[in-house]
Amino acid sequence: MTKNNILIIGCGAGGGTAAQFARKTDRKASITIFEQTSFPQYSKCGLPYTISGDIPEIMDLIEFSKEWFEKARIDLHLNTTVDHIDSEKNILYVSNENNTKQEYEFETIILATGASPFIPPIKNIQKDGAFPNGVFSLRTISDAQNISKQVKKGKHALVIGAGFIGLEIAECLHKMGMNVTIIEAMQTILPQLLDSDLSNQIQKHLEQYITIKLHHFVKDIQVTNNQVTHVYVEHAETHEKLTLPADLIILATGTRPNIRLAKELKCTIGSSGGIVVNNKSEASKKGVYAVGDCTEFIDFITKKPVPIGLGSIAVRQAIAAGVNAAGGQYELQNGVLQTCTSEFFGLEIASVGPSISQLEELKPIVGKHTGSSRPEYFPGGKSITCKTYIDSSTGSILGARAIGTNAAQRINTYATALLANMNIETFRTLETAYAPPIAPTLDTVTIAADIAATKWQRKRSG
Amino acid sequence: MTKNNILIIGCGAGGGTAAQFARKTDRKASITIFEQTSFPQYSKCGLPYTISGDIPEIMDLIEFSKEWFEKARIDLHLNTTVDHIDSEKNILYVSNENNTKQEYEFETIILATGASPFIPPIKNIQKDGAFPNGVFSLRTISDAQNISKQVKKGKHALVIGAGFIGLEIAECLHKMGMNVTIIEAMQTILPQLLDSDLSNQIQKHLEQYITIKLHHFVKDIQVTNNQVTHVYVEHAETHEKLTLPADLIILATGTRPNIRLAKELKCTIGSSGGIVVNNKSEASKKGVYAVGDCTEFIDFITKKPVPIGLGSIAVRQAIAAGVNAAGGQYELQNGVLQTCTSEFFGLEIASVGPSISQLEELKPIVGKHTGSSRPEYFPGGKSITCKTYIDSSTGSILGARAIGTNAAQRINTYATALLANMNIETFRTLETAYAPPIAPTLDTVTIAADIAATKWQRKRSG
Repeated sequence: MTKNNILIIGCGAGGGTAAQFARKTDRKASITIFEQTSFPQYSKCGLPYTISGDIPEIMDLIEFSKEWFEKARIDLHLNTTVDHIDSEKNILYVSNENNTKQEYEFETIILATGASPFIPPIKNIQKDGAFPNGVFSLRTISDAQNISKQVKKGKHALVIGAGFIGLEIAECLHKMGMNVTIIEAMQTILPQLLDSDLSNQIQKHLEQYITIKLHHFVKDIQVTNNQVTHVYVEHAETHEKLTLPADLIILATGTRPNIRLAKELKCTIGSSGGIVVNNKSEASKKGVYAVGDCTEFIDFITKKPVPIGLGSIAVRQAIAAGVNAAGGQYELQNGVLQTCTSEFFGLEIASVGPSISQLEELKPIVGKHTGSSRPEYFPGGKSITCKTYIDSSTGSILGARAIGTNAAQRINTYATALLANMNIETFRTLETAYAPPIAPTLDTVTIAADIAATKWQRKRSG
Repeated sequence: MTKNNILIIGCGAGGGTAAQFARKTDRKASITIFEQTSFPQYSKCGLPYTISGDIPEIMDLIEFSKEWFEKARIDLHLNTTVDHIDSEKNILYVSNENNTKQEYEFETIILATGASPFIPPIKNIQKDGAFPNGVFSLRTISDAQNISKQVKKGKHALVIGAGFIGLEIAECLHKMGMNVTIIEAMQTILPQLLDSDLSNQIQKHLEQYITIKLHHFVKDIQVTNNQVTHVYVEHAETHEKLTLPADLIILATGTRPNIRLAKELKCTIGSSGGIVVNNKSEASKKGVYAVGDCTEFIDFITKKPVPIGLGSIAVRQAIAAGVNAAGGQYELQNGVLQTCTSEFFGLEIASVGPSISQLEELKPIVGKHTGSSRPEYFPGGKSITCKTYIDSSTGSILGARAIGTNAAQRINTYATALLANMNIETFRTLETAYAPPIAPTLDTVTIAADIAATKWQRKRSG
């Protein structure tokens, strides 16, 4: 029986970061991490780029090595599964790769158990709980290694789901010379993120490189000798059927939080399916913290619960959990801004604020502008579109989207405005940095704001 | 005698923009502009890049043509000088290129008279008010055209002044194959903008391409057959003397506001030498607005007067002046953020907040971090340094500097925080957009903030 100050379950970005910040906060704390896989903290978000070769060596994804944790006197147990938690006696039961069992008493525990890929209800997608050859989700180093083995130039790849991850994978497979088709159940790509105006703009760009089938479901897959060969697809409304060749299928259909242990600890699970946490990363049960993809938190604007699916938020929650668990004090904002970005096929896309359906429910006033990264007279300017959504009664900024050059950094500017609860009338006056090779006198960021502000003023005065 | 609603003096970015926004605000207003030169609104900031050929056609700098003003029913008088203003009778006396005199009555006037290059006290720099061949300032299209004629590969160019404009010109001349030397009177480059830590970093980079002589004054120039051949330079402290060959000399030693007409109108002139304006771009005299380089306004943080020397501010002041002069309502913030940027020799540099000497007077706490635009595991990341200055008692953000990739957009994020009077404790929690090809989970922007916040907390608790 070992006694520990802080036990952490999961050594992804969340668990690893929590351990680091606990160590920074208390140099003497006893910190133990249990990790199911054989890899210490690595970047899941980098996995697609190991398939395309942008990241040449997959083991480079490991951000903190076993040795690093050793040096930091953090007791890392790889290949170790937490079987059960006794929430009355505060005992954790684990088994390692040799099936050796151990027990750990705890006072403080940090759940960083992540999420598992959602497997959509497709006929023949699994047999005895296993995918046939050629079918994958992409969540771990092993997944990426196995996909890479199946990537073949000229063959057909099918990606199910047109969210950020689906589109990132699609680009990576396209780069490797595969014929890529994306199947998306909704009527637009990036359906949670963008309105149809912006998603159509991106779709046109992507269709230069890949095939996109919107409003289609994959119903069944054809497996021959345990190898997928075709998929059977159906239109969501017309039910028209299609057969598509598919040598490789990637499921990019979202994830479900891993909450088995949270339930054993009797933590409250929220409406989105994640562990409910507050801005200190505390779960509902005293002494339990939770961070990352296994949690849900409230949106900064709507105050409605949202599942956490971003590494950037996981890391910030983990800083709070680590510091607080070790006796320090760290508070995040009371809600997540959901700032995010991705890049594929040469397009940078970024977003801050609620999902597009939640934004549209608020019936916002919208300001949109497409400009250039440089003044017109300076050759080499690149396109940038900004769109901002403001509250039609108060004029406060609810969210923004950007597509094009430096979209992410431009969205960080909007994120700061959201964080400040800034009104569009203030934000429109922002002095943006100007120099002919870099940005025009009025950046697209402020022109979009100005358009929204003008509409809002007209609405108030008319 | 013509009666006008709005008279505008000067058709640079300030005057031209004011006219546009006056027209947008009141479709029926009578709007007249008097411009001394033969060119309608063009970008002064683009001039260096016509010398390097980055902007291949100098006339592309003209952002709004004569025809554009005609279409907008704005009465533009080029080659027209305002000789005198009778501030009692509200009459403007002008003469055009044929020396035809005219009078204009006015109720509202917008001064956009700009600034003139400051000519440092160098022996032989002028004869009968004219430069010898090879000596130039760079303020107008004609200046740029004349400089271009004198640019010769392998010859010696000397730039006096190591501010943004001096360094931009230095790069352009270097690109054209000239041997470039910069002479700066202060002990560092960019002395108003950066502390010695950051300016030394940049200097090392620049010295791969050009020669930099700091803490030196140009005392005299050698002119033979009305062509400059050498300069005599002296160290500011040791008075050690140097003779340097110079086939071309560019004065980048700042400007002085053009305030002759403002004085005739009895407008208050401020301590920095510019026309005092408020956040509606109103000068001290009723019915008179002033915008751009001829004005001074207060700094947003220090509330002390600062000369306006940025096109981005001129344009924003002009929007306010144009809208307000035409009967609308437009208020800027009560002070300028002084957000600015430049790029030379592959380095992007950006700043927001007071000058470095004013910042240092406030004895701020400083957070500095140098990171990469990408996570470590993703090849191709580019260096980015952020430095932020916070109030040591309140923790509010006073300013920031950035050097490296997307410095300008990163500084816009800080500018938004300044605009919101944001505390570093709030800003450190900013969720920045993350994706492996674009930015790490914690952007350098927030790590610099986090370092400042941690120092501040320690100071408070210790």
